[in-house]
Amino acid sequence: MYNRSYNFSAGPATMPVPVLEEIRDEMLNYRGSGMSVMEMSHRSKVFQEIYDNAEADLRKLMNIPENYKVLFIQGGATLQFAMIPMNLMKNGVADYIVTGAWSDKAFKEAKKYGDVQCIATSKDRNYSYLPDCSDLPIRENADYVYICENETIHGTTFQQLPNTKGKILVSDQSSMFLSKPCNVADYGMIYGGVQKNIGPAGMAIVIIREDLIREDLDPRIPVYMRYDTHANNGSMYNTPNCWGIYCCGKVFRYLLDNGGLESMDEYNQRKAKVLYDYLDESKMFNGTVDKEFRSLMNIPFVTESKELDAEVVAYTKKAGFDNLKGHKSVGGLRASTYNAMPIEGVEALVECLKKFEAEHK
Amino acid sequence: MYNRSYNFSAGPATMPVPVLEEIRDEMLNYRGSGMSVMEMSHRSKVFQEIYDNAEADLRKLMNIPENYKVLFIQGGATLQFAMIPMNLMKNGVADYIVTGAWSDKAFKEAKKYGDVQCIATSKDRNYSYLPDCSDLPIRENADYVYICENETIHGTTFQQLPNTKGKILVSDQSSMFLSKPCNVADYGMIYGGVQKNIGPAGMAIVIIREDLIREDLDPRIPVYMRYDTHANNGSMYNTPNCWGIYCCGKVFRYLLDNGGLESMDEYNQRKAKVLYDYLDESKMFNGTVDKEFRSLMNIPFVTESKELDAEVVAYTKKAGFDNLKGHKSVGGLRASTYNAMPIEGVEALVECLKKFEAEHK
Repeated sequence: MYNRSYNFSAGPATMPVPVLEEIRDEMLNYRGSGMSVMEMSHRSKVFQEIYDNAEADLRKLMNIPENYKVLFIQGGATLQFAMIPMNLMKNGVADYIVTGAWSDKAFKEAKKYGDVQCIATSKDRNYSYLPDCSDLPIRENADYVYICENETIHGTTFQQLPNTKGKILVSDQSSMFLSKPCNVADYGMIYGGVQKNIGPAGMAIVIIREDLIREDLDPRIPVYMRYDTHANNGSMYNTPNCWGIYCCGKVFRYLLDNGGLESMDEYNQRKAKVLYDYLDESKMFNGTVDKEFRSLMNIPFVTESKELDAEVVAYTKKAGFDNLKGHKSVGGLRASTYNAMPIEGVEALVECLKKFEAEHK
Repeated sequence: MYNRSYNFSAGPATMPVPVLEEIRDEMLNYRGSGMSVMEMSHRSKVFQEIYDNAEADLRKLMNIPENYKVLFIQGGATLQFAMIPMNLMKNGVADYIVTGAWSDKAFKEAKKYGDVQCIATSKDRNYSYLPDCSDLPIRENADYVYICENETIHGTTFQQLPNTKGKILVSDQSSMFLSKPCNVADYGMIYGGVQKNIGPAGMAIVIIREDLIREDLDPRIPVYMRYDTHANNGSMYNTPNCWGIYCCGKVFRYLLDNGGLESMDEYNQRKAKVLYDYLDESKMFNGTVDKEFRSLMNIPFVTESKELDAEVVAYTKKAGFDNLKGHKSVGGLRASTYNAMPIEGVEALVECLKKFEAEHK
């Protein structure tokens, strides 16, 4: 109807069509307010309702306990890489598990602010698996243990959380946010950029246990980078990314109306299976991740050569599939199959890959 | 046609209807790309074009010299309040002119990072005028002089720039951005949140002279807060606020198509005059700012009592005028008359105020 392509981008990424339609229809006059959401004062009643509904719906979706705050903060995961050590370090000690490009970036940024160690990594095999995290050398005085729960570039997902030996777990869930049920109480803090599995880029969502929000911080920390600034002002110390909050709120409502996270999980498993099954039987394509650690959200795969990889990318692009080129650090192709990617898109992609394989035997 | 109200919000604020219509029409499939701008990879060719056009159009509009970089950064003016001293201080010394709530916030934040002094202020009369800035006690080793060129809350605008005695001038132009021509070369850096006179909240635009972008910074500065991070990566070190860039780009194009900043200036002067003329003749309403420093963008005014102020706000709201309540630090009412507010809106507001005045003699 709209002649949309199947967009396998790793982020910003595809969004549900009914959500886009609602946003379109409310563009000139949001529900009789006389204005677009982009034009609303963030201090107005009509915007506060949008905000409150978005937060309430997210709390419902993830079943977030009352002693956790939900914060909407600009600057993406990159700003969080610095905010986390600045705010959560009391002893100045943190232990990082480095399983890909994103946890490595977070680790390097955190090192600026304290005694930060990498206690486990899978770098030896280009992050194609996850290390055993059942008995790690977590330090006695570690303020937290850090993971990136789904590595967007390398395509791995933690199947079970690390044993943190009682320490607080901080998880970057950017590329798996709302893709399956999650027991928030297992974490001290969960956060993620919204531009992968939720809405438009320009915002991170932080879900943080209240007692971790401190006021006795180094006074030189920028006011914007203090969690208490955002927590004490309902994420409106300054003008927030109102549009992002509005669009994310639409997606939360859409997910609630479509069975919530259990339903997403079931759908995402079915969807990823379509592609993984083909990769496992194909003579041309190979998944790059050890089977037991495979992500349901980001599926990297390669052929035997870079030249052939490039040919496949061009072939799929011509057939109406977008953004399948893999990240340069892995090469090959990557299909991101977030919540909003319909199973029909994955099935069509597999048909296309099969056709290519048949033509290039 | 869309039953829109006249929205006098100080920000986020009203946007041009033709821009909103274009955005609406491109929502499900941006110009044959098969996707919404919200869904585009920021690394894709189609988004890079949107970015490049936005930057080129802004450069054209403001006639930005080649030795200035244009950066799109999340976190609003509030993050800039810390980034400016962190990045621009070499000697650790800066002089601030404090003329309202926003320059005061910037001043307080900057004090965390060096020897920062207020060298002139108009606080004695609740920021209702601007101090003489022709011969200020600017320090020999000051790294820069800071102003907020238009104070959104207090409604003042610098009619001429301060004499900085050769020091670099840094100006917060948030609430006057693109409202009139501006000689960029007079400044070391101009910046502003876009949510007042341009587009949706969630982004600041920084226009900075290249030689001020340093790499020899304190290594503990967060990577996101370094101007070189953004300058060296075309504002895409991490995923930017793509939607904000797209919408701002539409507004830049709209302004170019409608006579540019000279034309805006002429229109804004005519528009503000409608309200100021009435305030000057009214027996009930008084502007709060000394005439020679009046802003063309934010027009605060009061009656003789808080009770009457509240009555007027309710009366105008009922008549279809939105967000006229003044900020609590000034009280009364405030009409923000940014570029996108049509003169018909101001004329209608004056009619409404006249009617109120007649009914309440």
